Amino acid sequence: MSTGDLTALRRDLHRHPEPAWCEFYTTARLATALETRLPLDALHIGPDAIDPDARMAVPDDETLEFWYDNAREVGTDEAILERLRGGQTGLVAVCECGEGPTVGLRVDIDGLPREESTDPGHHPAAEGFRSVHEGVMHACGHDAHAAIGVGVLERIADSDFSGTLKVFFQPAEEVIGGGKAMAASGHVDDLDFLLAVHVGLDHPTGEVVAGIDGFLAVTQLEATFTGEPAHAGGRPEEGRNAIQALATATNELYAMPRHSGGKTRVNVGVVEGGTAANIIAEESRLVAEVRGETTTLMEYMNDTAERVLEHAGALHDCEVDIAVGAKAPSAESDGELATLVETAARGTDGVESVVASDDLGGSEDATYLMRAVQAQGGLACYVGIGTDHPGGHHTATFDVDEASIGHGVSVLAGTIERLGS
Amino acid sequence: MSTGDLTALRRDLHRHPEPAWCEFYTTARLATALETRLPLDALHIGPDAIDPDARMAVPDDETLEFWYDNAREVGTDEAILERLRGGQTGLVAVCECGEGPTVGLRVDIDGLPREESTDPGHHPAAEGFRSVHEGVMHACGHDAHAAIGVGVLERIADSDFSGTLKVFFQPAEEVIGGGKAMAASGHVDDLDFLLAVHVGLDHPTGEVVAGIDGFLAVTQLEATFTGEPAHAGGRPEEGRNAIQALATATNELYAMPRHSGGKTRVNVGVVEGGTAANIIAEESRLVAEVRGETTTLMEYMNDTAERVLEHAGALHDCEVDIAVGAKAPSAESDGELATLVETAARGTDGVESVVASDDLGGSEDATYLMRAVQAQGGLACYVGIGTDHPGGHHTATFDVDEASIGHGVSVLAGTIERLGS
Amino acid sequence: MSTGDLTALRRDLHRHPEPAWCEFYTTARLATALETRLPLDALHIGPDAIDPDARMAVPDDETLEFWYDNAREVGTDEAILERLRGGQTGLVAVCECGEGPTVGLRVDIDGLPREESTDPGHHPAAEGFRSVHEGVMHACGHDAHAAIGVGVLERIADSDFSGTLKVFFQPAEEVIGGGKAMAASGHVDDLDFLLAVHVGLDHPTGEVVAGIDGFLAVTQLEATFTGEPAHAGGRPEEGRNAIQALATATNELYAMPRHSGGKTRVNVGVVEGGTAANIIAEESRLVAEVRGETTTLMEYMNDTAERVLEHAGALHDCEVDIAVGAKAPSAESDGELATLVETAARGTDGVESVVASDDLGGSEDATYLMRAVQAQGGLACYVGIGTDHPGGHHTATFDVDEASIGHGVSVLAGTIERLGS
Amino acid sequence: MSTGDLTALRRDLHRHPEPAWCEFYTTARLATALETRLPLDALHIGPDAIDPDARMAVPDDETLEFWYDNAREVGTDEAILERLRGGQTGLVAVCECGEGPTVGLRVDIDGLPREESTDPGHHPAAEGFRSVHEGVMHACGHDAHAAIGVGVLERIADSDFSGTLKVFFQPAEEVIGGGKAMAASGHVDDLDFLLAVHVGLDHPTGEVVAGIDGFLAVTQLEATFTGEPAHAGGRPEEGRNAIQALATATNELYAMPRHSGGKTRVNVGVVEGGTAANIIAEESRLVAEVRGETTTLMEYMNDTAERVLEHAGALHDCEVDIAVGAKAPSAESDGELATLVETAARGTDGVESVVASDDLGGSEDATYLMRAVQAQGGLACYVGIGTDHPGGHHTATFDVDEASIGHGVSVLAGTIERLGS
Repeated sequence: MSTGDLTALRRDLHRHPEPAWCEFYTTARLATALETRLPLDALHIGPDAIDPDARMAVPDDETLEFWYDNAREVGTDEAILERLRGGQTGLVAVCECGEGPTVGLRVDIDGLPREESTDPGHHPAAEGFRSVHEGVMHACGHDAHAAIGVGVLERIADSDFSGTLKVFFQPAEEVIGGGKAMAASGHVDDLDFLLAVHVGLDHPTGEVVAGIDGFLAVTQLEATFTGEPAHAGGRPEEGRNAIQALATATNELYAMPRHSGGKTRVNVGVVEGGTAANIIAEESRLVAEVRGETTTLMEYMNDTAERVLEHAGALHDCEVDIAVGAKAPSAESDGELATLVETAARGTDGVESVVASDDLGGSEDATYLMRAVQAQGGLACYVGIGTDHPGGHHTATFDVDEASIGHGVSVLAGTIERLGS
Repeated sequence: MSTGDLTALRRDLHRHPEPAWCEFYTTARLATALETRLPLDALHIGPDAIDPDARMAVPDDETLEFWYDNAREVGTDEAILERLRGGQTGLVAVCECGEGPTVGLRVDIDGLPREESTDPGHHPAAEGFRSVHEGVMHACGHDAHAAIGVGVLERIADSDFSGTLKVFFQPAEEVIGGGKAMAASGHVDDLDFLLAVHVGLDHPTGEVVAGIDGFLAVTQLEATFTGEPAHAGGRPEEGRNAIQALATATNELYAMPRHSGGKTRVNVGVVEGGTAANIIAEESRLVAEVRGETTTLMEYMNDTAERVLEHAGALHDCEVDIAVGAKAPSAESDGELATLVETAARGTDGVESVVASDDLGGSEDATYLMRAVQAQGGLACYVGIGTDHPGGHHTATFDVDEASIGHGVSVLAGTIERLGS
Repeated sequence: MSTGDLTALRRDLHRHPEPAWCEFYTTARLATALETRLPLDALHIGPDAIDPDARMAVPDDETLEFWYDNAREVGTDEAILERLRGGQTGLVAVCECGEGPTVGLRVDIDGLPREESTDPGHHPAAEGFRSVHEGVMHACGHDAHAAIGVGVLERIADSDFSGTLKVFFQPAEEVIGGGKAMAASGHVDDLDFLLAVHVGLDHPTGEVVAGIDGFLAVTQLEATFTGEPAHAGGRPEEGRNAIQALATATNELYAMPRHSGGKTRVNVGVVEGGTAANIIAEESRLVAEVRGETTTLMEYMNDTAERVLEHAGALHDCEVDIAVGAKAPSAESDGELATLVETAARGTDGVESVVASDDLGGSEDATYLMRAVQAQGGLACYVGIGTDHPGGHHTATFDVDEASIGHGVSVLAGTIERLGS
Repeated sequence: MSTGDLTALRRDLHRHPEPAWCEFYTTARLATALETRLPLDALHIGPDAIDPDARMAVPDDETLEFWYDNAREVGTDEAILERLRGGQTGLVAVCECGEGPTVGLRVDIDGLPREESTDPGHHPAAEGFRSVHEGVMHACGHDAHAAIGVGVLERIADSDFSGTLKVFFQPAEEVIGGGKAMAASGHVDDLDFLLAVHVGLDHPTGEVVAGIDGFLAVTQLEATFTGEPAHAGGRPEEGRNAIQALATATNELYAMPRHSGGKTRVNVGVVEGGTAANIIAEESRLVAEVRGETTTLMEYMNDTAERVLEHAGALHDCEVDIAVGAKAPSAESDGELATLVETAARGTDGVESVVASDDLGGSEDATYLMRAVQAQGGLACYVGIGTDHPGGHHTATFDVDEASIGHGVSVLAGTIERLGS
């Protein structure tokens, strides 16, 4: 595939963004592209690429059906589609190139629930590849990541690399829901090295970050409080107030004691409850997250949060049900592998600046794959490929400079070649 | 109209419940019934029955259009419908019967946003007059109130009553939104007496409460908090957290100091805010109400609530916008008029028990009309007509014993006759 | 005893105020006065006047010793003093005057922990009977109550009253601690009637309130939270924060749902905790009270408060210990007896205005005695004797108009004579 | 002075601990020791050693007088004492030893408000130098610091060091109150190098930490809330509740948003308010602190805390008065100077382990002096001298292994000699 082909692929994916676990079109489109163009040794699709039981934050059936139907309507290959039913998306493409190490490359493929800009200054709008799905958008560059994954496979297939390359096209990163399922698929078990990649992150086109660190471990929690409704004017004493439980829980979650061991975070991002001004609320719900610089710190916050939720409910005589929405550990890039990336980046046309390391400051479920590889004695490295992006990540005007797709392919393929030479 | 006709009218209204300010079908149906059956001296409809500028808690245009279209689809008289456009509903029917006092009777006509039971044990379901509008129901007996209003007009037109009778078919009682608009219509200005009526209230069929008291003054408040969104993991310091403002406000509203002067109430009945676990919420909203045994006590609670909302916002660096949703004063039934009701009730077939007085314990915007009449030197009385109701008010299985429609007509018409004799 | 003698007695008690359960001097002084002047049939002192095991809110030994020594130093009769050791204070004086009903009169005798004014405009300061104990003061008129009790005994002994009179000089009213102990003493068991008396309460000299009502039932609670100290900068995660538990408990106590059944109150009146800015607090303490218009309402508030305290502690991983400080039920004056008081008051010189009834709005442990008498079929009435008081109750400039002592004696003795005639 | 003399000096100081700004005996004792034993070029005492106007957290006059009188009673030199009146304590001793750099050494001299153990296993108790002032104790090793300061002066005076040495005996470190006053004295203005020293910090005897970092910037705040008292049962609406304001402020301070820029801390360490269970509290008070990994982060927390305090008061209609108790910036040790300390430490008898760097995790007002020197182009380094301490810092059984006094003198003098050679 030429650079132009990769750009076209990226634009096609950009036009058809799909949210987490709904990457039906995306999965099928990538499968077709890979199968028709490449001499792959194996292509694991959907339930063969992930462990379906290890998925987290899977949407409800109605949502899955909605996107499944969307995919069918735009003419997705029915045979592939059938295998993805129920939100079993993603691929693992394998290229065996002789004796040598087994190297993994992880790219993520899902879009985000946000409206895309219609401004003529927004490149996808001007060039006609703006999202066809109102309210969903590739606003974090995963379309470019997928294209880079395909490009790297192609480059390695044509190279002197001696070893095995597996590219993991991972679903549901945006909800921290897919990394664990891919790490549990079995395909990671024989990796000696793992690379992961992200474009942008406030680094301009031409800059590469060899090894990104500072992944905060994260857990998302959904708490539902159930009380007893009552007429607020006539019988206040008969109510058990789920909105009061919610408010107490919210205040107290933010007031949790912090830890000397490093960064911690807590946020209550969504609240809702009640039906009318004059009814004591029977039910309320909050969605929160806790993070930590290490998995231990996140667990500390999580344990405290669960205690807070339990007693905030009981204080107001309400039941509380806590569901863990999604979860990811912290991780660190291995310096040894980052050094190799640095070397490859320095030899790449268009790369003008190489940064050894930077902090992500957020969370990522690539950490499941990184930790799995590191646990079996391998090395892992999360690579940043700079790209000029007009709007910030997750905003309506986010876009990538398509030149960075080529940079990504070169830096990653260059690294992989060095690993198997 | 015979008792059977009134029952049929009540069932037709029950089948077509409409929420506050959306009583398009209801208004037109009542207008048609009144015009075809009665020798009315005047029938004021929609904008002629209320002061449109004094309406409170009017829903948004989309909701109004939805119900307007519903009404048209079931074949409502287009000429009447046209006059009600934009949520200008309600009627005032006038019957001039010679020299004598001007007496008002107020009945309310709106339904409630709740699902009606499909249980075969639920009489409307068994008899085929369950709501045709899913999610809306006459669950508080206003269908019976409207039928009583028609029946009283008919009875008085045929009686020896000497004076003027005005029946006020008031919209939007459930949101405390219509009483003020009707009180400001001008039609109340010459009343010497006002009667209002409610069925049920935990009194069985055959029991009448001559003068209900204990209306709590009420104000509903909607507060919107606006902050600044930020990534909760990466840039917590850049956020201004609208959900924290909401939680603080909620806790503190419940903790407001109470008053030695009498009953007060506060409730936060609805909360919502935020978009995602990992985003510091930019916006949140709560709907609350405060009540007081007197209007002064309610104002005390309201003033305190506004102070709490303002500083809960400012404490979290958020803007707060407070909108008053609806409002009603307290009121008391005049004993002199209640005594007359008591006399009339004792002479009514089927009435086995007459209670002089009882406390409502809730709020009602009939108080606007009662206070207006009392302010001009008249007397007002809120009458309770017992009815066996299987489910409580506002529940899915609420229903009225239709015998109580006749009781209501007799007690009220009997009282009016005594006033104009 | 002449009126002058009663005034002198009142002033002597005023000079020697003693706090709850420390009325050593007061008890002995009253015993001596009664024994030397009156032909009593019985005088029960200290442990014979109360049930020591039913005392509530007894201060610690150090405080008891301090006041015991104070009493000895001012020359209190050692033989009497010895019997009062350990905070067993109070008296019951019995006067048997032939056949007839047994009538009780309850007066309270304790002072308050507050500084008395030194202003020359303050009558006790000007006349030389200001408190000799800095920080303690008769600021609620119990000195006058005691004098009235003595005066009534004297008047009845000289009268035609036929029956038995018992005067209960009750300790520890200010902490709601003595009423239960006196009600459990056995001396109440044969009462047919009980009168209790209070001067002032914003009624002027010459006004009498025949039957006071509206006693709020009350419980005082002391909650101690125990956590784990830690350095707030270096090891925040090692702390269990007793001050956070206290703050949560305080906020949530005020936010408890109220009751449709009538008035309720809650207050956190004292908080303290922690040792230094940089230490996470190991211990904190709050003193709260809950009240209700009825004992049932108070119990509702108390049960809710205990749930709140428990979970506020647990939410912050702290232990909580709840001690009930004192407690009193609600009660009502019997109208029949109040009518008799009203009659007696109208025949009393100096009484210009008689009010049938008024609400106390606070709490009183005379209710224990009132309820005990009512439970055995007797009648009880709490009488207000107006007195001009320059400062409000419990303030530094409170004082009584000594003319009201005579009014009290006459109204109460007049009532008792009527009961036994 | 021999090592034995330094030990004796340390023990004498240990027997006479004095709290912040009350180091009257300590200052005079050190002045006498220095003047009699050393050929000093200048000894600046009290107001000549500090800038009195820059003192923070000075206790009230009564406390100052109490300790002044204590000092006089144990026979302190009256002439020196007179100069320290009003809490103007501390010394700067200057030793000019020829051409060369000006080097400062800062040691702190104050004790802590805590009881010292009487356990025979506690060395000072066993050896007879336990604190003579009940409730005050050298529980953080400042007695050893002062002795080290004297020892270094003595060693340098006898050495080949070429330059000027100034030793700063700083008062009021424990309240973060003296560092700023000493930094503003003028004596720091010509320093090329600054060393500061602390014993212990969980490092054992024989271990040295060359350059301690991680000083958290800190501000202590005292907030007083003033409302309006009222009877909680009778007139709750007349109160403005200072305890509710306190509770809201406390909860909200802990819930302040944290910062991505680094560590932050907040603690409410002391709360108190109210007088009685049945009175709505008129006044309450809290003592809090905020910290940050940098001064900017601390200021961020402080600004947020002030906003929270203001609106927590206003929400409850209370006035709030905020007083800044004490304040210190963050700082870092210079690596270049730490390397020199490391070299000196490695050449010191008894030092078995040298750690390059460690985090303090708390706060220290030596940072004022460090920053002042660094701002004028000099280098600063905070040195840790290990000492076995049976109890933790600030506990009743804290003690130093006196061998570490010699280690401190050798390491610091060795460093200074290297700077001026």
